[in-house]
Amino acid sequence: MQRVRVIPTRGNPIVVASWRRGSTRPTLLIYGHYDVLPGEPLGQWRTPPFSPTVEGADLHARGAADDKGQLFSHVKALECYLKAERDLPVNVKCIFEGEEEIGSPHLTSFIERNRGALRADAAVISDTRMLAPDRPAVSYAQRGGLRAELEVKGPPHELHSGNFGGAVHNPLQALCEMIAGLHDAHGRLAIPGFYDDVRHWGEKERAFMARTGPTDEQILLDAQVERGWAESGFSLYESTTIRPALTLNGMAGGHYGRGAKSIIPARALAKLSFRLVPDQDPQKVAQLFRDHIARVTPPAVRSSVRTFSAVKPALVDRNHPAVRAAALAYKRAFGALPIFLRSGGSIPVVSTFQETLGCPVVLMGFGLPDDHIHGPNEKFHLPNFYKAIATSIWYMAVVARLRNAPQTRAQTEWQPS
Amino acid sequence: MQRVRVIPTRGNPIVVASWRRGSTRPTLLIYGHYDVLPGEPLGQWRTPPFSPTVEGADLHARGAADDKGQLFSHVKALECYLKAERDLPVNVKCIFEGEEEIGSPHLTSFIERNRGALRADAAVISDTRMLAPDRPAVSYAQRGGLRAELEVKGPPHELHSGNFGGAVHNPLQALCEMIAGLHDAHGRLAIPGFYDDVRHWGEKERAFMARTGPTDEQILLDAQVERGWAESGFSLYESTTIRPALTLNGMAGGHYGRGAKSIIPARALAKLSFRLVPDQDPQKVAQLFRDHIARVTPPAVRSSVRTFSAVKPALVDRNHPAVRAAALAYKRAFGALPIFLRSGGSIPVVSTFQETLGCPVVLMGFGLPDDHIHGPNEKFHLPNFYKAIATSIWYMAVVARLRNAPQTRAQTEWQPS
Repeated sequence: MQRVRVIPTRGNPIVVASWRRGSTRPTLLIYGHYDVLPGEPLGQWRTPPFSPTVEGADLHARGAADDKGQLFSHVKALECYLKAERDLPVNVKCIFEGEEEIGSPHLTSFIERNRGALRADAAVISDTRMLAPDRPAVSYAQRGGLRAELEVKGPPHELHSGNFGGAVHNPLQALCEMIAGLHDAHGRLAIPGFYDDVRHWGEKERAFMARTGPTDEQILLDAQVERGWAESGFSLYESTTIRPALTLNGMAGGHYGRGAKSIIPARALAKLSFRLVPDQDPQKVAQLFRDHIARVTPPAVRSSVRTFSAVKPALVDRNHPAVRAAALAYKRAFGALPIFLRSGGSIPVVSTFQETLGCPVVLMGFGLPDDHIHGPNEKFHLPNFYKAIATSIWYMAVVARLRNAPQTRAQTEWQPS
Repeated sequence: MQRVRVIPTRGNPIVVASWRRGSTRPTLLIYGHYDVLPGEPLGQWRTPPFSPTVEGADLHARGAADDKGQLFSHVKALECYLKAERDLPVNVKCIFEGEEEIGSPHLTSFIERNRGALRADAAVISDTRMLAPDRPAVSYAQRGGLRAELEVKGPPHELHSGNFGGAVHNPLQALCEMIAGLHDAHGRLAIPGFYDDVRHWGEKERAFMARTGPTDEQILLDAQVERGWAESGFSLYESTTIRPALTLNGMAGGHYGRGAKSIIPARALAKLSFRLVPDQDPQKVAQLFRDHIARVTPPAVRSSVRTFSAVKPALVDRNHPAVRAAALAYKRAFGALPIFLRSGGSIPVVSTFQETLGCPVVLMGFGLPDDHIHGPNEKFHLPNFYKAIATSIWYMAVVARLRNAPQTRAQTEWQPS
């Protein structure tokens, strides 16, 4: 039985598909997202972001790696399998959404309403990355997230900076001061209570991370910067995975175009995003941030805070049979066992699958650290695309042959190895 | 003899005109500027900025007060005089430029090359403001200025803030921190050496200013804000006239449009403008600023500074006969003697006229504090327009009858009354 449906939402539609042949086979749920970030700044692309272009071994396009290319590898794997065998070794359900980059606002309720139809023995998500083309990786942790917009208002309209400069506070300057005060000299956030729920990891886990994860040098190389900027006492890998972060994604106020304008701006806006770790709760962080901003807003201006796109941090048991099966599939396709890595990013659906469907989530990523996802010249390394298809094929085969098929159980808590 | 010429420059042309009838009459040089600031933010205008619209007693348009309307009052005064008398009581030279708002980059060299042709007994500029419709004012001080652009660069391209947030410094955040550090807790600039050349005024001058100038309450009312933000120990009027200021005119970096984008920006830009007072030198301030920024730039990012539009502060002797003549003209047109005020703004040509032509500069302003110059809904109060024409007519008549016509002498230094 095959069915494909496009489900409208108030935002972008959700695409669901199912292939079912008997209840004794394990069921895989494959997730991907077809939405992408905007292409801006367009001028910095070497090829048009929405006309996929092959250069050497890479396909350049917005979404090539995040996440259209990775999603497509599973579709191609299913196609290959069906063409060759006229059968799949497992039951398969697919769910492809179009709002991942904005925090999946309509997906959670859809999953909750359809938890029966979506039930699976394991969920597979390919939206993470490997260490290098020959070093596959399985992600076992995702940071949570929370977006915030902070607006500061000053005079009701722009003022002449000659007539009033020195007498009237500047909302843009006040915003700079408030932003500057969000971190202390040690790179830690200065929001009271922010670290209260941050889980501390023991030496064993930190030693595992040091053994398996990228070095500071590798991360700086990937970022193409000469020096890091991290919380004191943590490696860059730890800083991007087991430590929370607050990033100023953008900001604007006053006149920033060509030419000059002698004004005191009337308002200024900053867009920020938190990355959260176990056991931080995005809603609690939102409240701490609001309270903090209210406290530090200078009396001569007014501020307002909007928070949205709350995503809970997620951990996966790296010893789960469904995760171990992924390691075997990688070994077949790449000739190397994957290492187990934490991711710094956030895939909203991970904690939703864990909590609502109670199934293990296998994060089989095929991106590379220099894929420039979210930036200009995003690419997908084509050898990875072909090996991703092979990995997906092997994964179905391995899961089908597991003596004890993966059990449906909740994996919201990770136990240190 | 009448002559009007449009002089091309590398930027906007300069318009010059002369009317001369005998060498025994005093010669007035009338300056104005026809360029205006952009209309943005367009959405905040109640009427289209470039379609002048009369509402009640006000004409709304970009440039209505700054400076097309004020410039035009002198043109109308000349037209009236010539229509009524077929003669002018003084020789007149006009110079109207189109680059005042960007620091008059081509005017100074033109004046220097034409100092003979522009020689005058007094220069008249109407580009300042009164206290209220029935309270005319003559400006006797202008702040100097200097514009700066501060750019901070981080990674070579935008990075995913999940993967790198917490490990790589953010040029936009670094810019916020650098901006925040430009002022101390007392509202003073924290740039070493910045105040070294700031002239200190004695009790007599400060008492004169307290008597004649606007109160803190009036300035806050004009700005439509509830509380001021000024250097400790100075009134708001002092803060905007005898004290220097640094205003952040605008700033942008990263993603600030609709939606969200999980990035660490690659660069950020701030546009700033200094207002300077005697005896600060814009070039010296530019160097202090560059040195300071180089010192405070965090090692994980790179910064660059561009400075331009240097304008020297200017003072006018308020006891000069040409200035006293303006007081009489106001009395005739407005029924009230003007008060002598300092301006917070900068008119680049004032110090050029003083230094290059050696003539006194009479700052006869007709704007109002709530004219919203440089902002949306700029207006010119039409009764002021008509009285400005009358004032200009009376000024020519009064100057012509001065027993001792104003003498050509340099007025770069102001002597306290």
